[in-house]
Amino acid sequence: MTDLKYLFYPRGIAVVGASRDPNKIGSIILKNLIEYGYQGRIYPINPYANELMGLRAYPSISSVEGPVDVAVVSVPAKNVLDVIDDAGKAGVKFAVVISSGFKEVGNVELEEELVRRAHKYGIRVLGPNIFGYVYTPSRINASFGPRDVIPGNVAFISQSGALGIALMGTTILENIGVSSIVSIGNKADLEDADFLEFFENDPNTSVILLYIEGVRDGRRFIEIAGRVSLKKPIIAIKSGRTEAGAKAAASHTGSLAGGPVIWETALKQAGILFAKTVEDAFDWVKALSWNPIPAGDMLVVITNGGGAGVQATDTLAENGIILTRSPKDLVEEIKRFAPPFASLANPIDITGMAPDEWYYKALLAALKNPDVHAIVVLYCQTAVTNPMGVAKSILDAVKDSGIKKPITVGMVGGVETFEAIKYLTKNNIPAYPTPERAAAAMASIYRYLKLRDYVAKRLEVRY
Amino acid sequence: MTDLKYLFYPRGIAVVGASRDPNKIGSIILKNLIEYGYQGRIYPINPYANELMGLRAYPSISSVEGPVDVAVVSVPAKNVLDVIDDAGKAGVKFAVVISSGFKEVGNVELEEELVRRAHKYGIRVLGPNIFGYVYTPSRINASFGPRDVIPGNVAFISQSGALGIALMGTTILENIGVSSIVSIGNKADLEDADFLEFFENDPNTSVILLYIEGVRDGRRFIEIAGRVSLKKPIIAIKSGRTEAGAKAAASHTGSLAGGPVIWETALKQAGILFAKTVEDAFDWVKALSWNPIPAGDMLVVITNGGGAGVQATDTLAENGIILTRSPKDLVEEIKRFAPPFASLANPIDITGMAPDEWYYKALLAALKNPDVHAIVVLYCQTAVTNPMGVAKSILDAVKDSGIKKPITVGMVGGVETFEAIKYLTKNNIPAYPTPERAAAAMASIYRYLKLRDYVAKRLEVRY
Repeated sequence: MTDLKYLFYPRGIAVVGASRDPNKIGSIILKNLIEYGYQGRIYPINPYANELMGLRAYPSISSVEGPVDVAVVSVPAKNVLDVIDDAGKAGVKFAVVISSGFKEVGNVELEEELVRRAHKYGIRVLGPNIFGYVYTPSRINASFGPRDVIPGNVAFISQSGALGIALMGTTILENIGVSSIVSIGNKADLEDADFLEFFENDPNTSVILLYIEGVRDGRRFIEIAGRVSLKKPIIAIKSGRTEAGAKAAASHTGSLAGGPVIWETALKQAGILFAKTVEDAFDWVKALSWNPIPAGDMLVVITNGGGAGVQATDTLAENGIILTRSPKDLVEEIKRFAPPFASLANPIDITGMAPDEWYYKALLAALKNPDVHAIVVLYCQTAVTNPMGVAKSILDAVKDSGIKKPITVGMVGGVETFEAIKYLTKNNIPAYPTPERAAAAMASIYRYLKLRDYVAKRLEVRY
Repeated sequence: MTDLKYLFYPRGIAVVGASRDPNKIGSIILKNLIEYGYQGRIYPINPYANELMGLRAYPSISSVEGPVDVAVVSVPAKNVLDVIDDAGKAGVKFAVVISSGFKEVGNVELEEELVRRAHKYGIRVLGPNIFGYVYTPSRINASFGPRDVIPGNVAFISQSGALGIALMGTTILENIGVSSIVSIGNKADLEDADFLEFFENDPNTSVILLYIEGVRDGRRFIEIAGRVSLKKPIIAIKSGRTEAGAKAAASHTGSLAGGPVIWETALKQAGILFAKTVEDAFDWVKALSWNPIPAGDMLVVITNGGGAGVQATDTLAENGIILTRSPKDLVEEIKRFAPPFASLANPIDITGMAPDEWYYKALLAALKNPDVHAIVVLYCQTAVTNPMGVAKSILDAVKDSGIKKPITVGMVGGVETFEAIKYLTKNNIPAYPTPERAAAAMASIYRYLKLRDYVAKRLEVRY
């Protein structure tokens, strides 16, 4: 197993390529690293400066006195090998090579020499052609992405640079807390499997998100991912999954993406939730990282609109989940306040007349009912309710119940509904702007459980 | 053909059930009708008031002097028949029956009697169990939904009440301009096909959106929709499309939703774009209503991120669109500013270094190139660009070109990107938060063209 301890818990980090120009990639990384609050030693490396951003600058890594475990390298490609030689002398363990200009532009030889040279010194390489990495438990943001990533339990590994850095921003927008973000770019040395192994045993990580175009060693990837998926869900945006997409991927990373069918099978064998879109992946990440695993199959849908309930029922069915009748005692409890014509089978339609309070009561009853294992709450904005009131009722019911069950919320409406969704999101309740997304996100939790069973059977292990 | 002229261009509208209580449904409708600016006569009907909201109130419709073409009825179900008798005396042409308590709660007989009675007087019934209707060319908002719907070219017909009214709010949030919103509820009399026929010839409508659970006369629906789809795109959210969903639909509207396979075939025969989710439907509505029809198949994707380009390529392929190489002269033009390593085949990757200006130049070149017929623009938020700058460059290129071609935009990132998407949306450029949604929305335009061909062949007509 690749030991990544010193990458994620380094004693000192050197930043090679930071300068007085604040727009240089190296300078942005240095700034992020300082401002995000990394507590170990930070060494700007620049032969033309004595001091950068208030820190003493060094002419070379090997001129630093203390231990330097990580060197973040952002210099022109042609100078990277010299930096590796210097890093080798300094006893660096990981070279995080931001620089582009390698295999992705056809410069295969330079990339191979980079790895050979690094390995000569016992250095492992992350990259090249990456935007850096983040590990929030160590307060490391050694990236040129946005600074204020939110600490949490999701690890995100991205093969794509621009899309990855953009999605880093999306995690903040969507209040998705991360343990780590790793840009793996060309994967000249370290690749997905190495990081999966680290996150497998990382107590700070409970959900793993991958953006993959291709992997070098498919067999190892499936083997390791399969093992990891028994412990924590892995979601993969698999790009280049059609023939046309694979060709596009090959032209931009030079990696072989593999045929679509092969990938679908491979991801299943590895227990990985296969997301075709960025939106699905993020929706599922929220549902899986903010919710516990359900204790059983009884999923109830609570709604104030029949149409929303039908759409959710359809989406669930399309995801292999057929709703069964709500537990009798739950129906009885809801009958106490819902109008007599309300259809309570499942979906439980508390009708368009439902005020905030009915949402509170219905959700509280469902949470407290031991036969209910998971809940999808749907809301259509009407003239008689106010979306924020409903959102608050949902949050109150969750808090007051003291019971943790998986919940997703779908709220449809205008500006006020949009604000209500933001409010729930800020409080780590997975809320979505449509019934279908709420239903699909809930379904992803159950799909993970099925995949886990499948992998366990395949590997003949218990978990 | 059902003549709906006086429903959409009435000389006078009576509101039965408005009162001094502003929270009553009837009062909300009256208020919307007045405030949205309907220029014909409005007659509040209430035997206990002389005046409501500054308008003279009448004890009955038949006591009104001028012509009353439409009566909006919001009284308890048991009183609706009396109102119909009164409306009959007054020569009303359309009863818009908001009231619930009919077939949807098992009261089939009352619903049948309602239609019989109305037809006796030559009155056509919209509803019952609806939230009203909107027709922006006549400044009619006779609904209890949000007031400030945006005038535009989309007609939305909804079988669902709560979901429909919520989606009315979504049209405002998403800047989707509507010609009309019609809540058809129980469809006791007028149903989808009647409205499709009206919108077919309505010069104010260019795209039609349906939310359907079931229809009464399937054959007539397919026949009429097929004819209409030759002229303008129809998008349908078909709810109750799985067996489980159909059961849920039956329990809430009492309508037979029909098997999933039958529906898929039926919608295709009718030339209707089948949307499984509310989000897809609204995405496609924006793409179709804000764009012209492309003059040919050459679709180019412009991106600053390879990964986003691959995701779009995959999504397009999954929707039957295989990207071909960009026109040579376009590539040559982009080579003038893009770095030498940029991959310009298609997707055209102007690279992560691309500043706003390159977006402007690339898009302008694509718009001006006669061999390019449609453009998907993708953007990943990076450290070197600002999303609003990119959005403005896109809008400037569209304006400066003076050329209309279908465009969709996918922008991935954080808060600033979200604002940029809003900015483009406000300017009627269909913009989405992921590459896949931008690609799928573009694909919906091409799918419409294919469906139109299919229907034309089936009906052996030219269009």
